[in-house]
Amino acid sequence: MTDRLNEAIQIKRAADRGRYDTETINAIADAGLVAHVGTIRDGQPVVIPMFCVRDRDHLLLHGAPAAGVLRRARAEERTICVEMTLIDGLVLARSAFHHSMNYRSLVVIGIPDEVTEESEKAHALEMFVERLIPGRQADLRPNNQKEIQGTAVFRVSLEQASAKVRSGPPIDDDEDYELDIWAGVVPTRLAMDDPIDDPRLLPGVSVPANVTAYVRGD
Amino acid sequence: MTDRLNEAIQIKRAADRGRYDTETINAIADAGLVAHVGTIRDGQPVVIPMFCVRDRDHLLLHGAPAAGVLRRARAEERTICVEMTLIDGLVLARSAFHHSMNYRSLVVIGIPDEVTEESEKAHALEMFVERLIPGRQADLRPNNQKEIQGTAVFRVSLEQASAKVRSGPPIDDDEDYELDIWAGVVPTRLAMDDPIDDPRLLPGVSVPANVTAYVRGD
Repeated sequence: MTDRLNEAIQIKRAADRGRYDTETINAIADAGLVAHVGTIRDGQPVVIPMFCVRDRDHLLLHGAPAAGVLRRARAEERTICVEMTLIDGLVLARSAFHHSMNYRSLVVIGIPDEVTEESEKAHALEMFVERLIPGRQADLRPNNQKEIQGTAVFRVSLEQASAKVRSGPPIDDDEDYELDIWAGVVPTRLAMDDPIDDPRLLPGVSVPANVTAYVRGD
Repeated sequence: MTDRLNEAIQIKRAADRGRYDTETINAIADAGLVAHVGTIRDGQPVVIPMFCVRDRDHLLLHGAPAAGVLRRARAEERTICVEMTLIDGLVLARSAFHHSMNYRSLVVIGIPDEVTEESEKAHALEMFVERLIPGRQADLRPNNQKEIQGTAVFRVSLEQASAKVRSGPPIDDDEDYELDIWAGVVPTRLAMDDPIDDPRLLPGVSVPANVTAYVRGD
């Protein structure tokens, strides 16, 4: 797949950490919540965080700040860069130099396309809610026409994508393995804590099972 | 402070969430581990994740992928955009439309400057290690000359910075507060789990107290 990749997404530094397979790319996209979207504005690079969800072979982006930026990129047929990174651990080596992090990162280059067809847009909006809490959409009142029209949704193809992954223990210099310094990995993850009720909840309404199950990781 | 801000970092959407005070900006920089750095390459925006730490009134960036990108921006006197985002919670409203996330994000625009003076660079490299685990540097063998020369460190001033913060419960449409739908917030945070020993640890070397204390949040 590498040969048809945009130059900008080819992994050059630590090239052995580069991955181009769909499985790795999809897994990172599915695990991330926020994408960091790079565009050019008045000749300057600008990066904006946006809620992001994968739908088959593309990423969906939405949110108020997204609309202007992405619509402009689309109108000018300019690529944007969508980056997602998951921090998996602190890598503590025997020398400062070999300290690192374990991570999975994804970089996608593409021209955003607006999702305007009504059923596709309804599906996309549902994907965002389901990404936050699986099963949530069924508990909500349906979207009204004003809400659907008031939300801009864009898609970016995953065709031009590359991933970079570091995992495992520190890699120290050969002679440093003789030192009696502790080394290892502190695993990190995005943890969820117990749900906090909205202060204006109606009496008797309790946390639904799908929320509790998701928070617990069931 | 707003009046001397670069146009690119002014918060326009949800402007009530914009913050420009040093305290908020520093707190986000200190809580983040990874920055998403936007540059322009062959006319296209590119975003790369980089380990980032604050030192007084600027951010320090380093890492192999950083060197070429940042050195080029410096040589061409081009600004880069450094963005950091912390996800603090999933905001679950009564309608899909008002679902959101609690977050703290930071955007900094500046021309990177390379840290080359020897003592400043040694200090900067120490800051990176101490950011991973406070107190770690003292447990390591000292950096050698080759390591110091082999690591490129850059700084970006925090003068042109803005933050955006969402916190608290969902904000629903007035009439939706009458619905018996559960709403609230699922708090999220970057959690650390028990350290994993390097498989090549010398016998009798155990996890130091500073690592354990940091993981436990003491």
